[in-house]
Amino acid sequence: MKTVVVRNIERADADVVKRLGALGVSTAHEAYGRFGLMKPYMRPVWAGAEAAGTAVTVLAQPGDNWMLHVAIEQCRPGDMLVVACTTDNTDGMFGDLLATSLKARGGVGLIIDAGCRDIKTLREMSFPVWSKAISAKGTVKATLGAVNVPVVCAGALVNPGDVVIADEDGVVVIPRKDAAEIADKAEARAALEESKRQTLASGILGLDMYSMREGLAKAGLVYVDKPEDV
Amino acid sequence: MKTVVVRNIERADADVVKRLGALGVSTAHEAYGRFGLMKPYMRPVWAGAEAAGTAVTVLAQPGDNWMLHVAIEQCRPGDMLVVACTTDNTDGMFGDLLATSLKARGGVGLIIDAGCRDIKTLREMSFPVWSKAISAKGTVKATLGAVNVPVVCAGALVNPGDVVIADEDGVVVIPRKDAAEIADKAEARAALEESKRQTLASGILGLDMYSMREGLAKAGLVYVDKPEDV
Amino acid sequence: MKTVVVRNIERADADVVKRLGALGVSTAHEAYGRFGLMKPYMRPVWAGAEAAGTAVTVLAQPGDNWMLHVAIEQCRPGDMLVVACTTDNTDGMFGDLLATSLKARGGVGLIIDAGCRDIKTLREMSFPVWSKAISAKGTVKATLGAVNVPVVCAGALVNPGDVVIADEDGVVVIPRKDAAEIADKAEARAALEESKRQTLASGILGLDMYSMREGLAKAGLVYVDKPEDV
Amino acid sequence: MKTVVVRNIERADADVVKRLGALGVSTAHEAYGRFGLMKPYMRPVWAGAEAAGTAVTVLAQPGDNWMLHVAIEQCRPGDMLVVACTTDNTDGMFGDLLATSLKARGGVGLIIDAGCRDIKTLREMSFPVWSKAISAKGTVKATLGAVNVPVVCAGALVNPGDVVIADEDGVVVIPRKDAAEIADKAEARAALEESKRQTLASGILGLDMYSMREGLAKAGLVYVDKPEDV
Amino acid sequence: MKTVVVRNIERADADVVKRLGALGVSTAHEAYGRFGLMKPYMRPVWAGAEAAGTAVTVLAQPGDNWMLHVAIEQCRPGDMLVVACTTDNTDGMFGDLLATSLKARGGVGLIIDAGCRDIKTLREMSFPVWSKAISAKGTVKATLGAVNVPVVCAGALVNPGDVVIADEDGVVVIPRKDAAEIADKAEARAALEESKRQTLASGILGLDMYSMREGLAKAGLVYVDKPEDV
Amino acid sequence: MKTVVVRNIERADADVVKRLGALGVSTAHEAYGRFGLMKPYMRPVWAGAEAAGTAVTVLAQPGDNWMLHVAIEQCRPGDMLVVACTTDNTDGMFGDLLATSLKARGGVGLIIDAGCRDIKTLREMSFPVWSKAISAKGTVKATLGAVNVPVVCAGALVNPGDVVIADEDGVVVIPRKDAAEIADKAEARAALEESKRQTLASGILGLDMYSMREGLAKAGLVYVDKPEDV
Repeated sequence: MKTVVVRNIERADADVVKRLGALGVSTAHEAYGRFGLMKPYMRPVWAGAEAAGTAVTVLAQPGDNWMLHVAIEQCRPGDMLVVACTTDNTDGMFGDLLATSLKARGGVGLIIDAGCRDIKTLREMSFPVWSKAISAKGTVKATLGAVNVPVVCAGALVNPGDVVIADEDGVVVIPRKDAAEIADKAEARAALEESKRQTLASGILGLDMYSMREGLAKAGLVYVDKPEDV
Repeated sequence: MKTVVVRNIERADADVVKRLGALGVSTAHEAYGRFGLMKPYMRPVWAGAEAAGTAVTVLAQPGDNWMLHVAIEQCRPGDMLVVACTTDNTDGMFGDLLATSLKARGGVGLIIDAGCRDIKTLREMSFPVWSKAISAKGTVKATLGAVNVPVVCAGALVNPGDVVIADEDGVVVIPRKDAAEIADKAEARAALEESKRQTLASGILGLDMYSMREGLAKAGLVYVDKPEDV
Repeated sequence: MKTVVVRNIERADADVVKRLGALGVSTAHEAYGRFGLMKPYMRPVWAGAEAAGTAVTVLAQPGDNWMLHVAIEQCRPGDMLVVACTTDNTDGMFGDLLATSLKARGGVGLIIDAGCRDIKTLREMSFPVWSKAISAKGTVKATLGAVNVPVVCAGALVNPGDVVIADEDGVVVIPRKDAAEIADKAEARAALEESKRQTLASGILGLDMYSMREGLAKAGLVYVDKPEDV
Repeated sequence: MKTVVVRNIERADADVVKRLGALGVSTAHEAYGRFGLMKPYMRPVWAGAEAAGTAVTVLAQPGDNWMLHVAIEQCRPGDMLVVACTTDNTDGMFGDLLATSLKARGGVGLIIDAGCRDIKTLREMSFPVWSKAISAKGTVKATLGAVNVPVVCAGALVNPGDVVIADEDGVVVIPRKDAAEIADKAEARAALEESKRQTLASGILGLDMYSMREGLAKAGLVYVDKPEDV
Repeated sequence: MKTVVVRNIERADADVVKRLGALGVSTAHEAYGRFGLMKPYMRPVWAGAEAAGTAVTVLAQPGDNWMLHVAIEQCRPGDMLVVACTTDNTDGMFGDLLATSLKARGGVGLIIDAGCRDIKTLREMSFPVWSKAISAKGTVKATLGAVNVPVVCAGALVNPGDVVIADEDGVVVIPRKDAAEIADKAEARAALEESKRQTLASGILGLDMYSMREGLAKAGLVYVDKPEDV
Repeated sequence: MKTVVVRNIERADADVVKRLGALGVSTAHEAYGRFGLMKPYMRPVWAGAEAAGTAVTVLAQPGDNWMLHVAIEQCRPGDMLVVACTTDNTDGMFGDLLATSLKARGGVGLIIDAGCRDIKTLREMSFPVWSKAISAKGTVKATLGAVNVPVVCAGALVNPGDVVIADEDGVVVIPRKDAAEIADKAEARAALEESKRQTLASGILGLDMYSMREGLAKAGLVYVDKPEDV
C-alpha cells in the first residue's frame, strides 16, 4: 500500500447520482447485473436513512481514524465518504464531530466498514451512516493509510468518483463510467416493476405473469395431492 | 430431496391461530414446553411487526427464489409462508413484488431463513417479514426445491399447516395437532402471569412469590455481608 | 466460583452516576482513557434507551435465571443489574415479570450478556435493557451462580457498585473509586467538544484545528494530483 | 417438549450402514438428492476421524449433560449418539469418561451440536466425535430433555434409527427407510465417479465430458480474447 | 487505562504450575469450580500443543504489537505471555521473531486474543501458541498499552502471576493465591476419574455409578416402549 | 456483471512466482506494504499445504460451480484457480474430480471463498486448497458467472495473472506488475530477518535491537515497581 492522497478525481455526474439515488439500492443493483453490492452486515445506524453520492475513498488502519481527517479535506458537495480498513475492526472511527466537519464540506453521508458512534446526535443531525458496527471505542491518529485509491469496502470494489447508493436495503457501488447507462436501465426496470406490481395485486400469479409453468415442468417439478403421495 | 409440491395440506384451525397469535411468541413457546422456537437471528425487518398464520412451507436453493413463486399459488387466506434453504444464504429472495402477490392470495406474512429486500415498501405495505438478513442481492429462478414438505427453518422443524407465530420476541412453531391444547395452556398461563405481575409490582420478591429460598439454601447458596467475606 | 451472595456493597455516589449518565457512553469512555467498554454486540432492545446506575452483578449459568431472582433482592433504587454468564448463551433470561420486580425495587435498567424477551412490554414500560440477543427461549431455575462478585460481562470487568452507563453507543463501566475524577474529566471534555463542533461546522478542517499537517508529512504522507501519479 | 425416553426404536440395517459408511459423506449426500447434511460448523475433533452408525438421539439443555447418561443406556453396538440442544451452546458436555461408557456399550461415535472436551484422550482412544466446539467447560445434571425423539441437530432432522455418516467432509443423515435404496444409488454413483476421474486425469475437460458447451452458449456465455474486450 | 509497566509481580509457585499443567485444562477447570476458562475460540495454532506458566499480561491496541516487545523484557523462565486487546482484532501481532525472543527469556508459551503468524516455524520451534486467529497481517508499533495489569483475555480475567494452563481443550486461568489448593483438588479429582473410567469401561452405566435414576424419576422422566407412545 | 470469459491474460513471470512462493505469505505480505491479504477465515483444508501460482479468476454464483468447469479450460501449468462468489456461500463447489481435472491442466492449487469437499482425497493427491468452509453440499450448474475478470475474493482484489501465494499463514495476492519488485524487497527482508533472529536468540531484546526505549518514553510509558504503584 502506498500512503498517498489523490487530490483530483473524476466524479460521476451529479444528475446521474440523483437519478440512481431516487431508484434505490435494490433497483440499481439489479440494473447493474446484480453486482457491486456490499455485504449485508452494512446497516444504517438509524432507521430510514437514505443517501447517494460520489465516492471519496479512504483506506484506514484498525483503531485509527487519522486518514478520515485527511479525506474530509478532499470532499466536495455531493460526496459520500467510503472508509475501508486494512483488517476487520469495529472501533468507532467516526462520530458527531467528524460528521459536522464532513457536512460542512457538503458531504452527504458515510459508508464505513468499521464502527461509528454518537448515534443519537447523527440521527438528530439527519446525517446518514452505514456501518459494520456501532461502538463508542475511540481511535488514535498514528498510522497512515490512503485517500482516493481503489479500496475493497465490505466486499465491494470502490473506485474514487464511483456512485454509491445506500438505503434500508444496503449499499451498492456503481462504477462512474457505467453510471448513466445503468441509470437508464434502472429507470426502465422501475417502470416495468410498477406494472408487474399491479398485475400481481390483481391476483394474477408470478407463475403465470412470468410464464414459469413450462420451465418448472421441464425441470421436473411434480405436483401431488397429499403428503402421503410424496 | 424430492422436487415436489403438495397441493392439499391440513391447516390448523383459524380460531386457534388467532388465539395463539394474541398471546404472542414467548407465552406460546412456554405453553409448548419451551419448544419449537427458531434461532434468535430471525428478526422482523421492520420494528413492531406481529403475525400469526398457518405454514405453507418452501425448501429453496441458495440464491434462487423460483420455489417462492410456486408456493404462493398454494397459499390461502391466513397462511404464513415459511422458507427454508438447503444451505446458509443471505440473498434477497423476497421483495415487494412477491409481497404484493402473497398479500393478494391472503398471505399474512413471511418467515425466511435467508434474505429479504424492499424493506421500506414492506413497512409501508404493513407486510410483516422475519428474516436472517436484509439484502438487495437478487436471485435466479433455475433450480427446483419443494413446497409443503417438512422443513427445518432456522433450527425449527416446520410441517405444512402448523401454526407459526412471530413478533418482536422471535418466531415459534406449534404443531397443528397440538395447537388447540397449547392455546388452552397458553391462555391459562397468561392469566396467571397477570396476577404475578401485580404481586411483583407491589414489591413482593420472586424469591418469596415462587418460594425459592429453601431450594437455594439446599443447593448451597451462601450469603455473606461483605466482599471480604467471600 | 463460589456460589455466594454479597449483601453489602459500596456503591458509587448517586450524583456522580447522574453526571456521567448525562454525558453518555462515548464521552465517559474517552474520559476513562478508552477503557471499560463492553463488546459492541451489546445493543438496546428498544431504540432510544438510555440509563445509568450502580452495578449489582450476577454470574448466571446458561439457560438458567435463578440468580436473577436472588439478585433483585439485593437491588436498591439507582441500581443497574449486570448479568454475566459462565458461557455464551442467548436464552431469554429476563422478561416483563422480572422487569416489573426490578423496577419495584428501584432498579434503573438491565445489562445482560445473554438473551432478553417481552420486548414490546419492556418498551411500553420504558424499562431499558441492553442484551446480546433477543430470544423467547425460557430458562430453568436449577443451578447456582453468584451475586455481587466481580464478573466479566461482554468483555468488561464489572465490580459491584461500579458505575454503568448505557445508551445507543453501547455500555461502559467506570470503577466506583475513579468515578468522580472521570466525571470531572468527562465534563471538561464535553465542554471542549462543543467548541470543536462549532469550529468544524464553520468549515475549518480537523487537519488544521488539530494541527495534523506536520505530523502527517513527517509520517510520510504524499499528495499527488491524479490517480496516474500514485 | 415431552421429557421422555423411547426404549425401542427401529434401526437401519447394519449392512446398509456399513455400505454407506464405506462410501463417505459426500457420495451419500449426493445419492440422497443433496439432502440431510448438517451445517458445516460440525467438525471432527481430531483429524482423520470417520464413522457410521444408527442414531440414538438426545435433546439436551444448555450446559447440562444429564440426558447423555440416560441415552447411553439405550445404545447398542453400532449406534451413533446424536445430541441436539434446545439452544446454541458450546459447553463440553462430553469427555473421555462418557466416551469410555459409550464405547463399552458398543457406540461407534458421537455427533454433538455443542462442545466436547478431553480431545487428546479421545484421539488416543480412537473414539470419533464431530462437534460444534471444543470446550473444557463442564456441565450440570439438573434439567430433563428427551431421548430417541426426532431432533434437529445442526440444521438436520434426525429420527432415531436413521443412518448417520461422518467423516472429514461433515455429517449426513439418511432416513432409515430410504437407506438401502440410497446405498444402491451411492454405490452406482461411486462406480461412475471412478471412470470420470480417469477421463479427467487424461486431460479431457469437464466441459466436454459433461457436454456443457451448448448449454453455456445458450445461457449467454461470451468468450473474448483480451481483458480490453470485456 | 494507564499506560504503565509493572516490573515486579508475584508469581505462582513453579511447582504448583507444573502440577496443574500435568493435569490439563479440563481437570484444572473442574477443580476451580468451573471457572476461569477462556472462550472456546482460543485454539492452539499447531496440533498437540500443551503449556503451563505464570502470566505476564499485556493490554495491546488493535493492529499494534509495541507492548509485546515491552512485555518480553518483563518475562522470566516459566512465564506465559498473555495478550489482551482493547478491541476485537485478528492481526498477526506475534510471529517467529517474537517467539525467538520470548523463548530466549525462558517464556513457555503465548496466549493471544488476536492473531498470530509464522505458524510453520512456530511448530518447528515447538513454541506453543493459543490464538483467536491465524493471520499474516503485520502490525505497527505506535500506540501504548500496558504490561502486568489485570486484563480480560478472551472473556477471562487474568492477573499478573496467575497460573495459565493450555492444551487441546482450551485455556484456563487459576488465580495465584488459589493455585496450590486447586492443584490439590485437581489431583484428587484426577485420581477419582481413573477409577470411574475403569468402572465405566467394565460396562457399568453412569446412571448407576452416579445413582441418577431416582433423581431422574423425581424430575419427571418417563420411559415409554415405542415412538407411538410419546 | 458481464457473463464473459477472457481467454488471454498476461501472467506474472514464473520465476518471480517461484521466488515469492519460497518466501511465504507473511514475508511477501510485509514486502508489499502489508497489503493484498485475504481474510483470515481462508484456511488450508489439510495441514501443511503450501502453493504459489498465477491467478485464473472465477466469479461464481452461490451453490453453483458451472464456471469452475469453464475456468479450468483457461488454466495453464503454474496457474492457481481463484474463486470468488457473488454472495457468502459455503457449498462444496470443488472436490476430487475437479482437482483431478485442474491438476491435469497443470493447476497448482485452489483458493475458494466458498466450500470444498473430498478433503481426504485432496490430501492424498497432495492438491492444496484454501477455502472458507469444508462442506459436502453439492452444487448445480445453472447460472453464469465470469472467468478472468477482476474479482474480490475474501476481501482482496485479484486480477487475472496476479501472483497468489498461500501457506499456513493465509493467502496473499501480489499484482503482476509489482511482483518482481516485491520479490526483491521480500528477499532482502528475509535476509535481514535471519540476522534479527540470531540477535534475539542471543537474548538481546527487541526493545534494544529496534531502539524502542526512547520512543516509548516519549509516548508516555511509565514503569512502576509494584502493582500498588499503578
